[in-house]
Amino acid sequence: MFVRPEIAAMAGYVPGEQPKPGEAIKLNTNENPYRASEKVYEAIEHQCRQGLSQYPNPFGDVFREAAAKIYGVSPGMVLCGNGSDDILTILTRTFVEQGKLLRLPCPSYILYKSLAEIQGADSEEIRFNPDWSLPESFSEGKTNLKLVILPNPNSPSGTMISRENILEIAEKLPCPLVVDEAYADFADFDCVDLIKKSEKIIVTRTLSKSYSLAGLRFGYLFAQPHLVAEMQKVKDSYNCDTLSIVAATAAILDQDWRMENRSKILATRKRLTDRMRHLGFVVPHSQSNFTWNVHPRGKHKPVYEFLKSQGYLVRYMDYGDAGDGLRISVGTDSHTEKCLNLIEEYYDG
Amino acid sequence: MFVRPEIAAMAGYVPGEQPKPGEAIKLNTNENPYRASEKVYEAIEHQCRQGLSQYPNPFGDVFREAAAKIYGVSPGMVLCGNGSDDILTILTRTFVEQGKLLRLPCPSYILYKSLAEIQGADSEEIRFNPDWSLPESFSEGKTNLKLVILPNPNSPSGTMISRENILEIAEKLPCPLVVDEAYADFADFDCVDLIKKSEKIIVTRTLSKSYSLAGLRFGYLFAQPHLVAEMQKVKDSYNCDTLSIVAATAAILDQDWRMENRSKILATRKRLTDRMRHLGFVVPHSQSNFTWNVHPRGKHKPVYEFLKSQGYLVRYMDYGDAGDGLRISVGTDSHTEKCLNLIEEYYDG
Repeated sequence: MFVRPEIAAMAGYVPGEQPKPGEAIKLNTNENPYRASEKVYEAIEHQCRQGLSQYPNPFGDVFREAAAKIYGVSPGMVLCGNGSDDILTILTRTFVEQGKLLRLPCPSYILYKSLAEIQGADSEEIRFNPDWSLPESFSEGKTNLKLVILPNPNSPSGTMISRENILEIAEKLPCPLVVDEAYADFADFDCVDLIKKSEKIIVTRTLSKSYSLAGLRFGYLFAQPHLVAEMQKVKDSYNCDTLSIVAATAAILDQDWRMENRSKILATRKRLTDRMRHLGFVVPHSQSNFTWNVHPRGKHKPVYEFLKSQGYLVRYMDYGDAGDGLRISVGTDSHTEKCLNLIEEYYDG
Repeated sequence: MFVRPEIAAMAGYVPGEQPKPGEAIKLNTNENPYRASEKVYEAIEHQCRQGLSQYPNPFGDVFREAAAKIYGVSPGMVLCGNGSDDILTILTRTFVEQGKLLRLPCPSYILYKSLAEIQGADSEEIRFNPDWSLPESFSEGKTNLKLVILPNPNSPSGTMISRENILEIAEKLPCPLVVDEAYADFADFDCVDLIKKSEKIIVTRTLSKSYSLAGLRFGYLFAQPHLVAEMQKVKDSYNCDTLSIVAATAAILDQDWRMENRSKILATRKRLTDRMRHLGFVVPHSQSNFTWNVHPRGKHKPVYEFLKSQGYLVRYMDYGDAGDGLRISVGTDSHTEKCLNLIEEYYDG
């Protein structure tokens, strides 16, 4: 009653389970198992002494300047958001009108589809090839196509599309191509500098994964300044709070912390991949902080339920005729080891 | 290029000036001049010790339970947002389709109009009567009317529409009536309990003003549970960060702090009103933490500029043929006194 018909008809995006702290070991939403840099917490403490009674800087300028230096772009090419969810919402609202089309690959991040639904727009899912490359149709121009989103690395596969391929896709498309780099800090390469080669390329980032700050809600994007200016009209006036701006700035300025954390995650990812393969799972080479695990004998849902009963939450994903599987986040060594032992116990039992 | 034509055509909402901290005394954006309850800062510190690596609770349930107890509603009637900007965005996206109509009074909060523009919707401004009551046309039913927003107290006037009148308006309207109570904690009454008398009434709140937490970004609304459920589909999955949820909860649980702060603001508001009237300004009785000041001899813009040159920022508002004036936030006694002395100096000079 009263609500837009598109909203009433929607099921709504359902995020991964969030049990109460301490209730379960969370290997289901790709959070980082380590505590963020202490410099982040010091920045928050410092701001608390100064107080929170005044509105934040509306554009998070101190963060934009820091990110611009680190990535070799200008501050006008950076847009800050309340998590990359906010960034993706701003993108959809800026580019996709009601009745128009948003394209995404599949299996991938289902939220993109929900964002199109909220806009009253259509979405088109292009199936990855079996080797997780993209078919030609992903680059196809259509008159009503307004935005294409590609997670790179992708979830759930953890795989990547090459920089060359991304440039090619952007050149063929009649609209912006958003490269969602939520997981790029765990990968061998990224596409930030490609925004200078094609104005259609927009790169999004988050502090949730590689900076261990999912609770802070801070995301950002890189794009040409004239596009950033348009998106600033669409965002809420003060979309980032004062604490998240100072904390995010402290986080990206501590690249030593990030590199050390990355090394730990990559080492554990290798152990996780090797052992899952040893247990008979097909596991694509992951460039992210999770792996995608498909067992030839299936039984993914029962093993997810068994793990849950033992206090370990992993993500069971069912993509219909594209198959199902388990997405397991890289945890600490000890949690990852215990989870692997439970999986072994299940399949041997 | 690439952006929706509605966005390209927009000027974008321009929030009040935010100088760097310490650069000016801010009496322009209705921030609270006092530091928030120390319990807020203790809650943030406690959360920082626990860390921020995990996603927040998606609905801010601990806040919803606290607010429900304080206001005598159920937690399912509470929706949390990243500031009341986020709440207003969620409302517009839930109820107003492209091409439909949003109604607001005028002069009032211009942001509502920008929200309609971003949706590709039309907006209709209904002029307040000279005594700041509303004409019959504000309640008029139109088939394409999808949402009506009424700030109560209103900005810039600080005046209010009675509870009886609000119920009458809601009964006549074919769509929800949002009562934006950003300033209600400084008023003689509020409308929260009216959500039980008419399912069309939705009440929005913020912690920015009466809890001295503009930098935190936390707003919320009260509505019937079935409407809250629909709005939850539209909001970003984790729209409130972990720190803002624990801080907001600590803030509203400290009602002693709020009542003491309210007493101080109301005492200073009385002095501000009396003295401005003494200086010849017409000042409506304010139920908020600011006053609206119109001088028969005008000169509002030059006095705003003079004050700015002296390090005092007030808000100059120009509503075209509805006139212009100065909106002055209630500051500390000392800042308010100094600002008043400068205004006196200007008009006497």
